[in-house]
Parts: sequence; C-alpha cells; structure tokens
Amino acid sequence: MVVRTSSSPSAPAEAHTQALALLRETSPLTQCITNAVVTNFTANALLALGAAPAMCDIPGEAGMFARIAGGVLVNLGTPTAEQRDAAREAVSAGTPWVLDPVAVGALPVRTALAHEVLDARPAIIRGNASEILALAGAGSGGRGVDTTDAADDALDAARTLAVRTGGTVAVSGETDLIVDATRTARVPGGSALLTKVTGGGCALGAAMAAFAAVAEPFEAATAASAVWAVASERAASGARGPGSFAVAFLDELAAIEPADLRDRVELPR
Amino acid sequence: MVVRTSSSPSAPAEAHTQALALLRETSPLTQCITNAVVTNFTANALLALGAAPAMCDIPGEAGMFARIAGGVLVNLGTPTAEQRDAAREAVSAGTPWVLDPVAVGALPVRTALAHEVLDARPAIIRGNASEILALAGAGSGGRGVDTTDAADDALDAARTLAVRTGGTVAVSGETDLIVDATRTARVPGGSALLTKVTGGGCALGAAMAAFAAVAEPFEAATAASAVWAVASERAASGARGPGSFAVAFLDELAAIEPADLRDRVELPR
Amino acid sequence: MVVRTSSSPSAPAEAHTQALALLRETSPLTQCITNAVVTNFTANALLALGAAPAMCDIPGEAGMFARIAGGVLVNLGTPTAEQRDAAREAVSAGTPWVLDPVAVGALPVRTALAHEVLDARPAIIRGNASEILALAGAGSGGRGVDTTDAADDALDAARTLAVRTGGTVAVSGETDLIVDATRTARVPGGSALLTKVTGGGCALGAAMAAFAAVAEPFEAATAASAVWAVASERAASGARGPGSFAVAFLDELAAIEPADLRDRVELPR
Repeated sequence: MVVRTSSSPSAPAEAHTQALALLRETSPLTQCITNAVVTNFTANALLALGAAPAMCDIPGEAGMFARIAGGVLVNLGTPTAEQRDAAREAVSAGTPWVLDPVAVGALPVRTALAHEVLDARPAIIRGNASEILALAGAGSGGRGVDTTDAADDALDAARTLAVRTGGTVAVSGETDLIVDATRTARVPGGSALLTKVTGGGCALGAAMAAFAAVAEPFEAATAASAVWAVASERAASGARGPGSFAVAFLDELAAIEPADLRDRVELPR
Repeated sequence: MVVRTSSSPSAPAEAHTQALALLRETSPLTQCITNAVVTNFTANALLALGAAPAMCDIPGEAGMFARIAGGVLVNLGTPTAEQRDAAREAVSAGTPWVLDPVAVGALPVRTALAHEVLDARPAIIRGNASEILALAGAGSGGRGVDTTDAADDALDAARTLAVRTGGTVAVSGETDLIVDATRTARVPGGSALLTKVTGGGCALGAAMAAFAAVAEPFEAATAASAVWAVASERAASGARGPGSFAVAFLDELAAIEPADLRDRVELPR
Repeated sequence: MVVRTSSSPSAPAEAHTQALALLRETSPLTQCITNAVVTNFTANALLALGAAPAMCDIPGEAGMFARIAGGVLVNLGTPTAEQRDAAREAVSAGTPWVLDPVAVGALPVRTALAHEVLDARPAIIRGNASEILALAGAGSGGRGVDTTDAADDALDAARTLAVRTGGTVAVSGETDLIVDATRTARVPGGSALLTKVTGGGCALGAAMAAFAAVAEPFEAATAASAVWAVASERAASGARGPGSFAVAFLDELAAIEPADLRDRVELPR
C-alpha cells in the first residue's frame, strides 16, 4: 500500500524536504567528473539549486579535490583516458559519490570502468532502466543514452545492485524508482520535456551528489528526484519548446522551496 | 533557370519534406564526434529536431557505435588526440557520415586529419566557402571558423570534392549551396543571428548526419539547410539578441513541420 | 580621492569607451584555451560582444594560432595534458594574453602551470581575491572557484603580481579592482546573478583578451569589467532566475553601446 508522505509528517519521507533546506544553507561543494556534453548545464543546475559545483576531473587533482568535496559525481558519458584516471582517484576518497553509468553495457570502455569503480561502493547509482539492468548483468544497455525499458522493469536489478553496494539505486523513468536494500520510493510526475534537453538526467545525478553531502543516500536520491519533478512541471507550464523549457527549468530550480516537495514522494507504509 | 520546387510536387526536391517526416518517425541515432564548444548546443538541436544524439567519441567505442548509428558527424573544431582516433574508427564503419572540416587549411593537425579521412568518402562535406576551397586545395582556409569568401565562390571546389568523394558538398553562406557530382541546389534565407551563436553551423552539420540516416546525402543536406533557414527566420522574429535567439531557435526546431519546408529549396530545372 | 571618469572626458579612463567602439569595428580574433564547462558560454559571450572567438587548444596548432590572434585567454579550469601543452605554445607567441588561474593554490597541476606560464608575462591576470592571493604566494586559493576573500584584500598581492609581470591584474568581486604597477581602478556594480551562472567570470577573462587586442592591458581589463557590470545589471532587471538571466546577459552584451560605459569606472584623481 502506498501513502503520500505528507500525511505522516514525522516519517522518514519528510527527510527530502529537510535535505533541500540543508542544501540551501550549506551550499555543498559538489565535484563532477562528467561528460563534455552536459558540463555547462550541470554546473548551472547545481548553482541554481544552491550547491557549489566544481568540475575537477584532472588526474593528480581529482582525488585530492574529492577529499574536500561534500559529494562527487562520476558520469561515464564521454570517458576520456584522463577522466577514467580521475574517476579512479575520486571514488577512493571516502566521500559519498554517485555513479551515472551512461550507456553501460552497450560500449566496452565505460562498461569496464563501471564494473571496476562499483567495488568502491557508490552511495547512489543513477541510470535509466536499461543501464541499471545492464550494470546488474541483466540486460544489454539499450542504445546509448536511450532506455528501452520502463523503470519498474529494473526493480529487481536495482535491488541487487543496492544490496551489493550497500547504497541506493535510482532508476529514472516516467515514475522514478529509488531503492536501497530494504526500502522502495517512487517519485511520479515531472515533464517529458526533460528528455528533450541534453543533460536532464545527467544533471539529476549531479544533484544527487549535492544532496548526498547533506543527507543519507536514499533521502538524497529521493530529494533530487522530487526537485526534478516539481521544477520540470513548473518549467513546462510556460515553455514554448525545449529551448525555453531548459531556461525556465534553471529558473525553477532556483525558486523551488522545501515545502514544494511535499506530497511528491510515495513510500510504502 | 531556377524554379521553386513546390511548383513541381513530384520532383526530387520534395524529398526534403519527406526526409523531415521520416526523421520525426524514426528518430535516427546520430553519433557526433564534435568540438567541445558546441556539443551541448548540437545535442539539444538534434533532440529538438527529433533525432537521438549520442556524443560517442572515445577510441575503442566510436567505431562500434558508428556501426549501430544511423548517421555520424565528424567535426574537426577541437580535435584532441583521442577524438582523432575516434574519428578514424567511426568513418570506417560504413555508416553515412558528415565531415565538417572546421578551419581546415589554416591549422595543420586538423588539415592532415581532414585529408586522411576524405579517403573514407564522407556522404556529405559541410563547411563555409573558405573551408571548402581549402579542402579542395584552392584556398587558405580563412581565419579559423570565419569565412572570407561567399558560398558561390566555392562552387567549383565543391563540385571537385563531390566528384572525388561520390558524395554531396554543402557550402554555408547567405544562400546555402548544395552540390553533388551533377546537381546543384540553393537554399536562400535564414537569419544572420545564426552567425552570432556558436555552433550554429556545427549543429547544421549534425542535422545533416541525422538526415543522412533517412535520406540520400543530397536530399539530407538540402533538408537540413531548409530546416535551418526556416527555424532561424522564425526564431529571429521575436528575439531580443543572440541569447534569446538561440533559445527560440531550439523551440522552432521542435515546432517545424514538413510542410514548412516547401518553397525553400531552389533547384535548376 | 575618487572621481567619476566622465567628468574628465580627456582622461585616460575614457579609453574604455573607445576600446568598446574599436572592438566592434575590428572584431578581434580571440583565442580561448579554456575549461570544458564554459567554452560554449564564453564563445557566445564573445560573439555577442562583437569579437571573433576561436577555441583553438590543440598542441601543434595553438601556438601558430596565437600568432594570428589579437588576444589569447589561458584559463586553467580543467587543464588536460593537451591543454597544458597548448597553453605553453600560446603564451610564447608574443600576442597579448590573459591568465585566469582558476583554483590556483588549491590544486597542484594548475598551480604548477600557473607559476610556469607567469614567466611569459601575461598582459592581464584575472581572478577572484583568493586566486590572486594564492598566485602571489599570499593565500591558499579558497575552495575551487569560490573566493573566500574580498577584492580589496588582494590589492597588495595584485600590485605585486602587476609589478612582476609588467602587466595588469584584475580582481573580481562586488567591486572589481584593476591595478597595474602604478594605477588602480575600481568598477562597482554588476549583478550578483552573474555568480549563479557558470562561466560568468571565465567569460569576463575572455572579454579582457578580446579588449587586449584593441587597447592597452589596463584599459582592456577596465573596459571588460565595465561591460560586465552594465550588461549584468540590465539583464538582471528582467530575469526570473539564473536561467533567464544568462540568456538576457548575452542579449545585453550585443546591445551595449560605448556611451553606456560612461560613469562606470572609478579612477583615483
């Protein structure tokens, strides 16, 4: 049975509203080792949200920076040799980190790296259903960044990964699915226009890294998904297309308040 | 003698309206090996248009990905060593590919690579007049991305390249010029604001790669040029400057319909 | 004692309005070796301003290009191995160049490179107070791109660097500080929303490189700071948040006129 979390204000689900308040107060330093396509949008999304992004992805610096960062994102979208080494450094720093295994399973270089860094136990893994299935050894990885599966198709795979890493796994879809070893949350809603802006999902992974600096992984992933759902719906309401939507989405990320996240997360009672 | 193509509905020129309809139906996977400046805008332009962009440019992955992609762009704007190897892999895959020889002739690393990959016979070469002249051995390449020549100055050079590659050559300018071994099309119009947005031309090359997945090269290049002309004119009509123009251009790419391309291509009778 | 420069129209301070007029007339070729996060915004800002950007950062090309460019930016935000070599080439070309030592002092790879290229005497060094203090050997470099110091805290450090390089040092802050060996200018104003858009400061460094092609370094840095102050204030007046602000900022860069810069620079009499 699913209940709206706002009906139980002391329940863990309210943790996601507190997480946003805390993120705004502390502006966590969020390191992103991410793909060349989305660095700009990701940094702007983090700034709008209230975090302090730093795209530090050079070997010899990335590990050191990860030790002072509050959260780290490792996104495998365009993994150059230097980024692969930087990722290896960063995931060893002991800071909560998010793995976004873009197109894992479909392409060999990133697939090998994804399995390698998995041993460093990401606090959160974020992907679409095809990527989560592939990372768990249960699918082919779709075609690049597209998914060919629905989020709930990846529920078992997500649970398997969550148990293996001791962390949280977030599956993006029409309804986002967030699981750890024992819990399952769902975040419905959000605008489909997000899929028409490059980096909509990649920046969500970065937001999870920012929230992971101020909350436990399960709450961090849930909070970020809820923010994305609310901000994308508001942005879509006045948008003329994907261009104006992306601009409005950044405006809405900056305007969103903790209270706006109420009623946006479904937890089983 | 030049006629508007809409007066002869069964003529080949109508192929460009069919190409847009087909692109929307099939959302072709379009691989872009392109420069760091424009990856984001290019991916957003392809998404808005209806294609599925993938910026896969890592050696060891690029060739494999090119074999599943519908079209491939190789843009030489910022050719790192890894991108040069990725380009070599991708152009050997047998998938229709577009060469955008940014600043060829002016700078040695990209010039050597451009001449090397030319042997892999790009389906389409897209550049400004200075670049086409330089690639054909008839000019100096202008100063970086700027052109110092008008499109028609490069007509003979474009024809020479088209005969050599067996493909199509598109020369961007106030009026775009598209030629293959025997045919010549012109696409007039479009807004000059496109030249005030970085990647306006680079993203056009990516659009040609997307169209090359669903149409013959000559029709693909013509369709992309016509889309750019219509969308840029519409975007300019409400823009306050280059910032708002770029946003509106993405909105217009998403809104454009096949019928909007009628009367936009001039073919000699 | 501080006077508004418009009260003394023949004073050197009016040089910054002339610099903008000259930039518009000549569209200086401006080479940017800059970080992956901000290349797109930087190129768009330079285009809007009226310059001709070229992000040429490949070893074997960067030095050659720097010899034909009017101004060069070396920004150390994400210094890959290839960019480090490209920077070494470019600063040796004899063209006026700007050093933006992002996060210098905090991270070792860029810190070593910053000190190395300092010997090639940048015409302008632009950074926040923490970076200028760190580069002068007087601070730790803050936390990445953030500054933990006010601009005037870095006045002595800036003077030290200016004397050492024979150039100009610009310290960004609520009031920008521009110094050379003997002069000090201040540019107050500007919108805080600039700090919520990634690359706001990085693109300012690029603008200084463009102005350095048409004016002496002190006037170039002052002109760029004044343009940033005016354009950001105007953009902020109609913005709903950081997304729409960034778009409007590009529009305002294109719309700004030399006369708009009057009264924006404070020089000691």
